[in-house]
Amino acid sequence: MDAYLAVVSKREVRQYTTEPIPEATLTRILQAGRATGSSRNRQPWAFVVVTDKSHLAALSRHAYSPGNLTGCAAAVVVAVEGDRDRFDAGRVAQNMMLAAWALGIGSCPNGFTDEGAAGAALGLPAGMRLPTVLTLGRPAPGAPRPRPGADPERVLGRVKRKPLEAVVHREQYRPPASA
Amino acid sequence: MDAYLAVVSKREVRQYTTEPIPEATLTRILQAGRATGSSRNRQPWAFVVVTDKSHLAALSRHAYSPGNLTGCAAAVVVAVEGDRDRFDAGRVAQNMMLAAWALGIGSCPNGFTDEGAAGAALGLPAGMRLPTVLTLGRPAPGAPRPRPGADPERVLGRVKRKPLEAVVHREQYRPPASA
Repeated sequence: MDAYLAVVSKREVRQYTTEPIPEATLTRILQAGRATGSSRNRQPWAFVVVTDKSHLAALSRHAYSPGNLTGCAAAVVVAVEGDRDRFDAGRVAQNMMLAAWALGIGSCPNGFTDEGAAGAALGLPAGMRLPTVLTLGRPAPGAPRPRPGADPERVLGRVKRKPLEAVVHREQYRPPASA
Repeated sequence: MDAYLAVVSKREVRQYTTEPIPEATLTRILQAGRATGSSRNRQPWAFVVVTDKSHLAALSRHAYSPGNLTGCAAAVVVAVEGDRDRFDAGRVAQNMMLAAWALGIGSCPNGFTDEGAAGAALGLPAGMRLPTVLTLGRPAPGAPRPRPGADPERVLGRVKRKPLEAVVHREQYRPPASA
């Protein structure tokens, strides 16, 4: 899949088939996480991969959207050292989700209602932040899926986002006219 | 460029040629930011694009690496509403940097020494967080550059990162043996 198309077309996928993710595919996704840049190359992260159904059910009790956890083929918890590392966690999560998308796997970032409780359930050191748990799986029928032949301009014309003029400022921020 | 290759091969570029970034290329990079997913699709961000040399010099005074700002062809400040949005800022920054990489443009995320002062200089509302300013430009000779023909496995074998076993945990976190 073309890189620019992958970046602009990646949508969140919350419904998955029951098909497991092949180990080689999961490794490629995790390698994309490992390779990600971070502030001063500190790599302040741990990735906890959860595929066991009973473990996913236990983890789901700490998630805002439990069904994403119980219905996924695999979950990857991204844990980082401190609040400032949430930015690098976003970089690493995006890299893993884009790698997955390019490999035909859908994904969604999920927040925890209580990061401390989720971390304790996973045996993570106290104080680690858990900005996200990525849920992964082949998109179920009807869910968004990668379309390697799509035109990026058409994709950008349809995506449900604010218009470019509303988010981009040149040289200086200018407040919205209606503010 | 292949999506998986882009994701695993993107390196930080801190030395740039003096060539300006064509407006159409800059727009494609910003569109990749606009299209990025965020928690509840809130899109809690503003992108401030700075290309004027005197503005870049002024902004550089608030950056940990002033030379990245004074030497770049364009800078994109990513401002978000709150600390929890730093994760989404990481997603959007990674998307813009990968789009740039696929278009032959190098980039680097830079931290501010004082986010409040940098925000004030840009006219941003008080209290906004500025997790990063991306510096962009064509890679100078000797700097890392995109190599569309590279083999992802070879790239992964050479990247200066912790080994996969050190960052990946299965089902439960296990502390390092030497801890």
